[in-house]
Amino acid sequence: MHIVPERDIADLMTRAAAFDAVEKVFAAMAAEDAYNFPVIREALGHEEALYGFKGGFDRAGSTLGLKAGGYWPHNLEKRGLINHQSTVFLFDPDTGKVSAMVGGNLLTALRTAAASSVSIKHLAREDAKVIGMVGAGHQATFQLRAALEQRSFEKVIGWNLHPEMLPNLEKVAAEAGLPFEAVDLPGLKEADVVITITSSFDPIVLSEHISDGTHVACMGTDTIGKQEVAADLLTRATVFTDEVAQSTTLGEAQHAVANGSLTADQITQLGAVINGTHGGRASDREVTLFDGTGVGLQDLAVAARVVELAIEKGTAIEVDF
Amino acid sequence: MHIVPERDIADLMTRAAAFDAVEKVFAAMAAEDAYNFPVIREALGHEEALYGFKGGFDRAGSTLGLKAGGYWPHNLEKRGLINHQSTVFLFDPDTGKVSAMVGGNLLTALRTAAASSVSIKHLAREDAKVIGMVGAGHQATFQLRAALEQRSFEKVIGWNLHPEMLPNLEKVAAEAGLPFEAVDLPGLKEADVVITITSSFDPIVLSEHISDGTHVACMGTDTIGKQEVAADLLTRATVFTDEVAQSTTLGEAQHAVANGSLTADQITQLGAVINGTHGGRASDREVTLFDGTGVGLQDLAVAARVVELAIEKGTAIEVDF
Repeated sequence: MHIVPERDIADLMTRAAAFDAVEKVFAAMAAEDAYNFPVIREALGHEEALYGFKGGFDRAGSTLGLKAGGYWPHNLEKRGLINHQSTVFLFDPDTGKVSAMVGGNLLTALRTAAASSVSIKHLAREDAKVIGMVGAGHQATFQLRAALEQRSFEKVIGWNLHPEMLPNLEKVAAEAGLPFEAVDLPGLKEADVVITITSSFDPIVLSEHISDGTHVACMGTDTIGKQEVAADLLTRATVFTDEVAQSTTLGEAQHAVANGSLTADQITQLGAVINGTHGGRASDREVTLFDGTGVGLQDLAVAARVVELAIEKGTAIEVDF
Repeated sequence: MHIVPERDIADLMTRAAAFDAVEKVFAAMAAEDAYNFPVIREALGHEEALYGFKGGFDRAGSTLGLKAGGYWPHNLEKRGLINHQSTVFLFDPDTGKVSAMVGGNLLTALRTAAASSVSIKHLAREDAKVIGMVGAGHQATFQLRAALEQRSFEKVIGWNLHPEMLPNLEKVAAEAGLPFEAVDLPGLKEADVVITITSSFDPIVLSEHISDGTHVACMGTDTIGKQEVAADLLTRATVFTDEVAQSTTLGEAQHAVANGSLTADQITQLGAVINGTHGGRASDREVTLFDGTGVGLQDLAVAARVVELAIEKGTAIEVDF
């Protein structure tokens, strides 16, 4: 078996490789060649930690396994460790033997960024010029970097509850040679693409803040109770997601589904657009919305890719297990 | 982190260490210091494999993690590998970082044998002389070896659907210097302790085959639909188990619960007897029955112990992960 420690991931994995892996596995999910297992998520009652497993099997990609780990909120203050801790374990689908162990922290950031980037490729207008960010934390910088590669953007605008964090976004925009502008929420109307990436439990973006023709990627809501955009934006928009069952229960769509204004059969897997079984954006006036909930198969896909890269470069640790 | 490959387990782990680990974790479960997570079990639709995760957290033992793996029915014929394949992953409960990876195949056999052995220690009559085995496969030899250490048995009797496998039991009896006798099912009435360890989907042992005062350990039923003993034996007996929620749904008690003759509140955790909060066997005439369903915490407990032993002996593979 092969081991790829967390410290090696940054030198091995590229945004392009993460994009490719996530696009392929979304396509496999929509073709029913890949599926996610039920998610285990437990509050341990110790260190206020959340811990669990996200597993899946991708027959098309021959990938089987799980991401295990979670959130230890006191890691940083107590021990100088990052609070999100996860590890991916891959198994040989032909034998059930473990084949790889991979550090999952940076991979989680990259696969989450790849998901909104894949949605922009397949759903945003080709002529999109302005990208709007809602949220300016660490993960927001990953989302923005990946998004900027998908269209010829000319400007980045951004809003954050704590404006002192906006320079995080400005820095990424500057790296890409783009101007950055802080806006209030109505200012998002200028954006052709909006990414929300917050931990909000109340809607931040209202339907009136979004112009016709915009693509909105909601990436922050992965838990019952969280909400980034008003429910009526989901009835106005054509809604896409990674996995419908998660979208309706713990994703951004949960609120519109709960109030009866949206049903599961009105939500399309993004993979169907990738596969060409759904036409995607229907007009330049349509609002498209991607509800990115995060699935285990994304983690397995990027981990499998990084193991290949580590073997190619000779940096994988080999253990006779 | 430390790695203990499957090939090292046999030299490291003892029946005594497995017994001690399982007894402690049963006690912790009954004291609500340890709990199992919901079990994930998936038919992959590939190689007819069953795959899944059994996780848990033992605050008392500071053990967190999961066993991942399953059953690949064509491994032996196609590849010369054993069909059951599993790996245990341990995590540091204080940080969420992975701390160990351990081969889980032999450990699964040892922890299952330890469970019936713990039940015999705490529930069988002190003067038990005859042990009866129902089932004579590979796992039955583990159950018998561990059981023989708990009382001064003088004879082993056994039944198997395919009698040509009974020499498996005879060999273990001979190792312990005990006579072995093949019996028909009514012949089990001679036994003071009976262990059932089959993959049956219909009752084999009837209530009339069991004498008053016997301890019965039902170890084969871990799935909806399986059954080793008649449901009315569970209403006649005082029923104990590793985990009540599993016992009533996928353990031996499922059938008596389904027909309304047994309720969850009539089933006692074996750990309560270990902890002294339940008195255990009430008389020499009582039939006691242990429904051993198998829980993830058993796997974590024996894996944690084997990691300690491997570190002590200097055989653990250390990886800077």
